[in-house]
Amino acid sequence: MNYCSACGASITKQIIPGDDVPRYFCGACETVHYQNPNVVVGCIPIHKDQILLCKRAIEPRLGFWTIPGGFMENGETTEEGAMREANEEANTNLEIIDLITVYSIKHIDQVHICYTAKLLDLDYSPGIESLEVKLFHPSEIPWKEIAFTSTSFALKAYIKNVENGESKVHRGSFDLEKWKNEREGF
Amino acid sequence: MNYCSACGASITKQIIPGDDVPRYFCGACETVHYQNPNVVVGCIPIHKDQILLCKRAIEPRLGFWTIPGGFMENGETTEEGAMREANEEANTNLEIIDLITVYSIKHIDQVHICYTAKLLDLDYSPGIESLEVKLFHPSEIPWKEIAFTSTSFALKAYIKNVENGESKVHRGSFDLEKWKNEREGF
Repeated sequence: MNYCSACGASITKQIIPGDDVPRYFCGACETVHYQNPNVVVGCIPIHKDQILLCKRAIEPRLGFWTIPGGFMENGETTEEGAMREANEEANTNLEIIDLITVYSIKHIDQVHICYTAKLLDLDYSPGIESLEVKLFHPSEIPWKEIAFTSTSFALKAYIKNVENGESKVHRGSFDLEKWKNEREGF
Repeated sequence: MNYCSACGASITKQIIPGDDVPRYFCGACETVHYQNPNVVVGCIPIHKDQILLCKRAIEPRLGFWTIPGGFMENGETTEEGAMREANEEANTNLEIIDLITVYSIKHIDQVHICYTAKLLDLDYSPGIESLEVKLFHPSEIPWKEIAFTSTSFALKAYIKNVENGESKVHRGSFDLEKWKNEREGF
């Protein structure tokens, strides 16, 4: 961020009186430009004992499988966003069942909120961002081809709930430093 | 938004190919400036059968009571944000117990995520944004002086959980149009 989006003047990053985090601040029009995490909303579409996954047609993680999801838009609820994304990526007709995961990813400033959803019919098909959409029994999930850690977390939460006969909401987070250390064998 | 924060050129709002929502777009450097909802994180600090509320020292809703909470910052998890806000507003020492509410407010593009938290000691005091911080038994909650609908929703969710001996997560949303119609007696 180099220029003020309100007046076009150059901006600086500084601590504003009363705050303790440096913010982008325009000295000309005195606007503070806050930067905050984004919400990613998604759902696990369910049909009987199967779940619908989408094979990604776009980067990041092109060719990997995921649950439908994406950035929440202004003017919608989290549930509406999750349904919109499923419609965009898999042309689904579904209804939200319940919340299942809230998952923070600190190093990219994201919160992933995931729901379970009931497929109301089997008239789904790949949207423009998907190469393929397909129902999987939990035992068939291609774990090594899952696109994102938040997706694996949500799928495992769902399987655990099914096994335990629960509808528990699971909390989680991804810690990049911890992941790097584990990968390097420290 | 009038100017590109990357290069300072004038920007327009237009539908970008492959998208279906108008975005702020810079024709000079081709940056798309997305605008997305913000996350507000908070918690209900609990001591035995009492909960800690803060009387607001700032607008909006100065003088009204709320649970500690505020905008989630980049580089933190939702739980860390909820604890940070409680520390800022009530100088608490607490630990997160569990998620209790996820509440969307469409007309201001916010998602409020609230946790229950255990007060580890009674060494709390008003932070700079609070006039007073005080423990309330659920029967003593000043419902007509609660600052925000998301706070009322979280407090009612907590009371319901206590009454039912559950630790359920409650979903909700505030619909401004519905609220206006109900208020006007339609």
